[in-house]
Amino acid sequence: MANFELTKDFLEATIDAVKRKDADFIEKEIADLYPADIATILYELDGPEAHYVFQFLDTETGADVLSSIDSDDRKRFIKEQFEVEEIAKYVNLFDSDDAVDLLNEQSIEVRERVIALLEDREQARFILDLLHYPEDVAGGLMQKELVKVFEDQTVSECVEQIRDQAESVDKVYAVYVVDTEHRLKGIVSLKEIVLARKNTKIGNVVQEDIVWVETTLPGEEVAEVMQRYDLEVIPVVNAVGRLLGRITIDDVVDFITEKADEDFQAVTGITGEVEEDDNVWQLAKSRLPWLVVGVIGSLLAATVIKGFESRLVQITALALFIPIMGSTGGNVGIQTSSLIVQSLAEKTGLSLGLGERLFKIVKVALLNGVVIGALTGCYVYIIGEPELFWVVCLALLSVVMLASIMGTITPLVLDKFGINPAVASGPFITTANDLVGISTYFFIANWLL
Amino acid sequence: MANFELTKDFLEATIDAVKRKDADFIEKEIADLYPADIATILYELDGPEAHYVFQFLDTETGADVLSSIDSDDRKRFIKEQFEVEEIAKYVNLFDSDDAVDLLNEQSIEVRERVIALLEDREQARFILDLLHYPEDVAGGLMQKELVKVFEDQTVSECVEQIRDQAESVDKVYAVYVVDTEHRLKGIVSLKEIVLARKNTKIGNVVQEDIVWVETTLPGEEVAEVMQRYDLEVIPVVNAVGRLLGRITIDDVVDFITEKADEDFQAVTGITGEVEEDDNVWQLAKSRLPWLVVGVIGSLLAATVIKGFESRLVQITALALFIPIMGSTGGNVGIQTSSLIVQSLAEKTGLSLGLGERLFKIVKVALLNGVVIGALTGCYVYIIGEPELFWVVCLALLSVVMLASIMGTITPLVLDKFGINPAVASGPFITTANDLVGISTYFFIANWLL
Repeated sequence: MANFELTKDFLEATIDAVKRKDADFIEKEIADLYPADIATILYELDGPEAHYVFQFLDTETGADVLSSIDSDDRKRFIKEQFEVEEIAKYVNLFDSDDAVDLLNEQSIEVRERVIALLEDREQARFILDLLHYPEDVAGGLMQKELVKVFEDQTVSECVEQIRDQAESVDKVYAVYVVDTEHRLKGIVSLKEIVLARKNTKIGNVVQEDIVWVETTLPGEEVAEVMQRYDLEVIPVVNAVGRLLGRITIDDVVDFITEKADEDFQAVTGITGEVEEDDNVWQLAKSRLPWLVVGVIGSLLAATVIKGFESRLVQITALALFIPIMGSTGGNVGIQTSSLIVQSLAEKTGLSLGLGERLFKIVKVALLNGVVIGALTGCYVYIIGEPELFWVVCLALLSVVMLASIMGTITPLVLDKFGINPAVASGPFITTANDLVGISTYFFIANWLL
Repeated sequence: MANFELTKDFLEATIDAVKRKDADFIEKEIADLYPADIATILYELDGPEAHYVFQFLDTETGADVLSSIDSDDRKRFIKEQFEVEEIAKYVNLFDSDDAVDLLNEQSIEVRERVIALLEDREQARFILDLLHYPEDVAGGLMQKELVKVFEDQTVSECVEQIRDQAESVDKVYAVYVVDTEHRLKGIVSLKEIVLARKNTKIGNVVQEDIVWVETTLPGEEVAEVMQRYDLEVIPVVNAVGRLLGRITIDDVVDFITEKADEDFQAVTGITGEVEEDDNVWQLAKSRLPWLVVGVIGSLLAATVIKGFESRLVQITALALFIPIMGSTGGNVGIQTSSLIVQSLAEKTGLSLGLGERLFKIVKVALLNGVVIGALTGCYVYIIGEPELFWVVCLALLSVVMLASIMGTITPLVLDKFGINPAVASGPFITTANDLVGISTYFFIANWLL
């Protein structure tokens, strides 16, 4: 793996050293680690211990460590352990986008005082600019640090620009070319600059055919564009084309991962972003909403069954197939909806019309319904309830059909209303189809028997 | 959004033009698009039409288009429409990693003939090297194209190297420094090269403290490392530290997205990678395995109920609560397992021990169980079956507990045996908990009534 990996033994030794306040060990073993690895160690310490480690780090490393800590943990850690002066010292060295993320976690008072205390006044201006944007659009993901040149400058002036900004712009990737109104005209890649002659005019090496996004574009779409065109950085412009900042791929990768985690949780019925190490109350709270929806659905199903109680008294064996109606409905529903959710997320070209979609889905349902029906039909004979054969088979086929149709329509409707279809597809579909499955079964039983 | 977006109207006009073989339109409107956008248009055409478009593209654009088409579609398209000579013409210009992906989709005969026909013999050697590695490890993700210099060379020699390789190395990012045995010593960023003086020795500007991976590291871990250290490119070395290639972030982003899609499908009970636009038979097949598992689970539940049939004849109202036992078990199980699956995937630092995990999960279950039990208890009184109060409440609490424990243990066990825990967590957990829920209910009913 990497040339250095935090082993469990090393982690334990380190934690132990910090608890003993073993300054020698910390200076020798921790201060030189990658910031991301130091962050991992801090997760295992309590607030005062973690803060103690910071006095051994130079300001730049400290800033890098702070910028790589999880938002929730950092919010609490900084609030409890840091004075505003100390926050300002580190934020001064942050990339502007990360600085805004950190400040958004704190109270408005802390935020304002930190900005006032920043030594780097350009950084302060950058941050004030960025605070306008919502977190999940291009404007909220971008950083202000970039290298910008004019078309009529030369390559060697461009190199001087890079030199001037070398400290604040950590990764250059490319140089942006703008006109006198600071409207984006194109880019020059670093490779081009390395290879071009010193007195070449920027206008002669500029690549004008580039992809950019506007500040208001939602984060998912920024991710999609960067992935589609294989970009590691993308410029952000305002409505009149003025270059305002750039988004780097690392922020987008984090965004993609978070989004995938959210969808995964949503489809399994967990609301809000929780992790296994959150406290018991948060964990319970994140699950209750959908559990309660499930309970309500099941109690409605119970009410339906109660409506047919006289039938059930006559033929108790009807109860045997309650589970299969519910679970088949739920399973088919969630399978169908998950494919729809994914093709909604991918937006590849022209999408199928609703009619075509449903027709195809009904064919798939028929195929699966026949297999499941046949299996269950055999079982009905084996346990010696042949009078239920047609009821069970017909009910199963109807359940598979209905669940497929609901599994198709629900995410499409949610998407139309701007709700993340993954959120309500999983548990909602399962619950609704449990209910539909059981109701269908009893209606058919009542009709055929 | 981007400075150019494929609108539905434009797509339709284009498709129409291709069908009419309107060479003028294609030349004017399609040939200049970004390769990724041309690929989108090809998805909407049939094989011969798509192939017709290629004659209007220059070889480089054609190669870029081919390298951005989905694997499944490309496999069929190339097999049906391209002669080996034509494949070789395009593959010649591919990055080596993409070339290997394309060749792996074709038969061994086609693969060998294409390699023999490649004009660029270095490309052929690169491809033969890469064919050794499984697709989902670092070796299978890397490309051979990179710029490599020795420590005792100067910055200006390094620039010459970049110039020599400018055509084959599309994105340089950084220059790799090796010793005489080609063992990786460090990197020099392009920014450093832009800023350094021409006669500076590489050894003086090299950054030695870098992160690399070995060829055998699984793709997910490569993604994790790159994300952790915010890298847009990572060098790949063999067991003795020889530099063999590099992995760029765009390939890793694709890998992360595919992996997330797979997990999402797995947890919703779909096996194999299918998409909504696959054919009916593929779609039905991808769902049947878990549907059948669900049916078997439900039929086992039916058998359990049959075992208690005499009880059911006495108290028909018992049937009312079959759905809630099954669905609550399923819901709690999948919620619990999804959190475990995610924390397994994240591997953040020291993980909790099994004992701690279970203790915490039991506490969460108790909290949720009490709320659900109370709700359902009220319902029992409302519908006038008070004699079932204790049975239902106790059963629900037990079901929540058991489902939580199973939801915790199942993914941990699967992970231990090297099975993707997401695959079997979703539908397996739901089915198993349906069964456990219903059995528990009837055992408790039999005992208390």
